Amino acid sequence: MKVGVLLFDQFELLDVFGPLEMLGHVEDISIELVAQSIGPIASAQGPCAYAQAQLDSGTQYDTLLIPGGMGTRQLVDDQRTLNWITQQADKARYITSVCTGSALLAKSGVLDNKRATTNKMAFHWVMSQGPNTHWVTKARWVKDSNVYTSSGVSAGTDMALAFISDIWGEHKAREIADLAEYEWNSDATQDRFAQKYGLA
Amino acid sequence: MKVGVLLFDQFELLDVFGPLEMLGHVEDISIELVAQSIGPIASAQGPCAYAQAQLDSGTQYDTLLIPGGMGTRQLVDDQRTLNWITQQADKARYITSVCTGSALLAKSGVLDNKRATTNKMAFHWVMSQGPNTHWVTKARWVKDSNVYTSSGVSAGTDMALAFISDIWGEHKAREIADLAEYEWNSDATQDRFAQKYGLA
Repeated sequence: MKVGVLLFDQFELLDVFGPLEMLGHVEDISIELVAQSIGPIASAQGPCAYAQAQLDSGTQYDTLLIPGGMGTRQLVDDQRTLNWITQQADKARYITSVCTGSALLAKSGVLDNKRATTNKMAFHWVMSQGPNTHWVTKARWVKDSNVYTSSGVSAGTDMALAFISDIWGEHKAREIADLAEYEWNSDATQDRFAQKYGLA
Repeated sequence: MKVGVLLFDQFELLDVFGPLEMLGHVEDISIELVAQSIGPIASAQGPCAYAQAQLDSGTQYDTLLIPGGMGTRQLVDDQRTLNWITQQADKARYITSVCTGSALLAKSGVLDNKRATTNKMAFHWVMSQGPNTHWVTKARWVKDSNVYTSSGVSAGTDMALAFISDIWGEHKAREIADLAEYEWNSDATQDRFAQKYGLA
């Protein structure tokens, strides 16, 4: 399975590297970081990741991972990125997003008539990008057919383990979580942050 | 506070980016990724981070973060890296490591006569790198004077929040954890993985 991860200026570090820590321990998976151009891309926290592929390389990914971060505020108006997401999503087996990454999926039309969730503190802004989406306010993550969307930042790590569980089995997901000494929040309906931020 | 993060081939992704997600939300902190040379450095999971500084730049960091990963197995024999750690640690205010990063601290002499912990599955190998260290088998992380060492991978994120709590207050640490919708394991003595891996 070839996983394509969208990078952009001001992406949120853990949105990308929490899921990739877990996915990277699946033997069948190869990961590519993709951006508008090859080279270092600065996160919202400062440190750079290195994009090894660019959007128009023609590579079709089996699984998409769209992270969030402050950079999504500009990117929802970037037609080149939205077109890439729409085209990739059309043929990808699985589509995933973390945090405000779901704003990009929504704006690309990928979440039309689907159930989805997002970061709690940015919920109203993200909703405004997807008027035809059934937004779920209380959920650690939401799966609708082949689309997984998670709540804020670290919820993406829990969603990635659920994704692994769905495809390679719960035993594999727990093995990887234990390897990383990670306390997996494995129940998607447990979400105390919805209440904390006034959404439930 | 200037945080210097050591990167090397086959570093573990979450060892670096879990702590940096949290530290990056502290207003006073700037982060530099440091390696033997400037440029992309491949993680154990494949994706590259971009080192913006090299070991011999002369920069003294206030806080060191030494991650783990399979790359530490070679790096414990790399005198240039060990010298850099020894020199930095001598003047740094705080020294931190995640997972098998403590093997590098131990081999550099930084953990002599100190209490420390590390990854549960690599415990015996790491112990062999630090015969003068008081290794603690059951701990999510250990603080001894200005040195913080954590257990495997995701324990580093919990340690980073404890570090923030010690310096900027628990309120700040909880605010950042909540922002990331992260369920902070805030009790360093709670460590079910020690038992799972036969160490307690």
